[in-house]
Amino acid sequence: MLTLLRPIRFEEIDAAGILFFARYLTICHDAMEAIFDPLPGGYRALITVRRIGFPAVHTECDFKAPLRYGDTVRVETSVAKIGETSVTFAFTLFRTSDEVIAAQVTHTTVVSSLDKIEKTKIPDDVRAVLLPHLRAG
Amino acid sequence: MLTLLRPIRFEEIDAAGILFFARYLTICHDAMEAIFDPLPGGYRALITVRRIGFPAVHTECDFKAPLRYGDTVRVETSVAKIGETSVTFAFTLFRTSDEVIAAQVTHTTVVSSLDKIEKTKIPDDVRAVLLPHLRAG
Amino acid sequence: MLTLLRPIRFEEIDAAGILFFARYLTICHDAMEAIFDPLPGGYRALITVRRIGFPAVHTECDFKAPLRYGDTVRVETSVAKIGETSVTFAFTLFRTSDEVIAAQVTHTTVVSSLDKIEKTKIPDDVRAVLLPHLRAG
Amino acid sequence: MLTLLRPIRFEEIDAAGILFFARYLTICHDAMEAIFDPLPGGYRALITVRRIGFPAVHTECDFKAPLRYGDTVRVETSVAKIGETSVTFAFTLFRTSDEVIAAQVTHTTVVSSLDKIEKTKIPDDVRAVLLPHLRAG
Repeated sequence: MLTLLRPIRFEEIDAAGILFFARYLTICHDAMEAIFDPLPGGYRALITVRRIGFPAVHTECDFKAPLRYGDTVRVETSVAKIGETSVTFAFTLFRTSDEVIAAQVTHTTVVSSLDKIEKTKIPDDVRAVLLPHLRAG
Repeated sequence: MLTLLRPIRFEEIDAAGILFFARYLTICHDAMEAIFDPLPGGYRALITVRRIGFPAVHTECDFKAPLRYGDTVRVETSVAKIGETSVTFAFTLFRTSDEVIAAQVTHTTVVSSLDKIEKTKIPDDVRAVLLPHLRAG
Repeated sequence: MLTLLRPIRFEEIDAAGILFFARYLTICHDAMEAIFDPLPGGYRALITVRRIGFPAVHTECDFKAPLRYGDTVRVETSVAKIGETSVTFAFTLFRTSDEVIAAQVTHTTVVSSLDKIEKTKIPDDVRAVLLPHLRAG
Repeated sequence: MLTLLRPIRFEEIDAAGILFFARYLTICHDAMEAIFDPLPGGYRALITVRRIGFPAVHTECDFKAPLRYGDTVRVETSVAKIGETSVTFAFTLFRTSDEVIAAQVTHTTVVSSLDKIEKTKIPDDVRAVLLPHLRAG
């Protein structure tokens, strides 16, 4: 499990005065990228040098409590499943001011060569970085 | 069912060169807002005058095909379910260049008074605008 | 001069309840892209096929009146200057509800080959599309 | 002068493959907010509790070098001018990989009561937080 602290920013608020619902996924993407930090150049090098990405194939979000400007979320990220060519990430977002769960998200990705957006086998070094975050059970 | 045409914009692309996955939800929100156009002042008046909103409680997205800058999506929006205080919208996004389904999204909302983010009964005039889009079965 | 109508969207509002200031430039970019619509494939084909873009080198914005969710802006776009390799666009944004000027923006771009982000001469067909919008004086 | 390090994020890239030009202003806003951190509750409490904001009245940006996904910018923020009701911030953005200046931005704001978007005198405690960043000359 990896933990990321992330403030809710001034411009992420919508006309209802709360974090716009699509931005929960943006926050989860920030957290997913952090998983790859142990690789040389991190997620960036995967994308820009090796041209390997993790396009989404499925996401599910349960929104439990609103987030507002100035709140900080703590994202706890784990890997729920690793297949030959796919990885499912699981995120729990806590509102740090009161430790309430703001959202729970699962995000299934297919490892893809970006030049063709075609699925590809997870490279061994990438798998090695994901395995320590694999949730038991 | 309501149909919305929406271009993919220059700044909605991510570093992998495709529509950023969170923006599919932004597009669905645009489509959901359009459902309320028959109300005086549309979704805007609901939010800013009556202070009633539709915060998300659950979303599910199946991503089927990538979208790129300059693609146009056709969003077909229907209402999958109306309860006392909740509404579930269903969206199918087509890539108009080849009629491929780009994504399918369901989006469950709870009708809420925005001053307290507290659920409230769907007002009759709002229900009347939603009912024609209710999917059979 | 080209005219574009553009609604202010739900998610473009900031925590102060008004259009986030950076998004005025996003709106101007939408308007600039529309100038290129007469080219085959529009701005999109310039970017994705011919790999020619218009990166900003200078922008100036005067913000005159706030914009809120549900406002519509009318953007009047003209070309203030065309050089060998640079183009300056001028935008006036009107809040249509009361015809107040919301902002005035100038945006200087350098025509660039995108593979190297290197300036290049404006192609003749591109110049031909810009000239009708050149402001007198 | 205040220094902020800020990565360029995956979703901030545009279809030309570089940081979308409007997002330079978003980054400057992040840096401006940091100036107010010494106040109790920071910029957030100004906005949400005291209902005082700093809407933009004028911005000027010189874009010098492109920024890409994974670049980190170092933003050096100072106060160029403080009046009775207005503050001008000056930002220099460095691309940390090669210390090239990516952009220079000035941003003039009018201190405003947010309930009416009406200018107001800078409160003494706010002025005290700005003064140490006032540029000589």
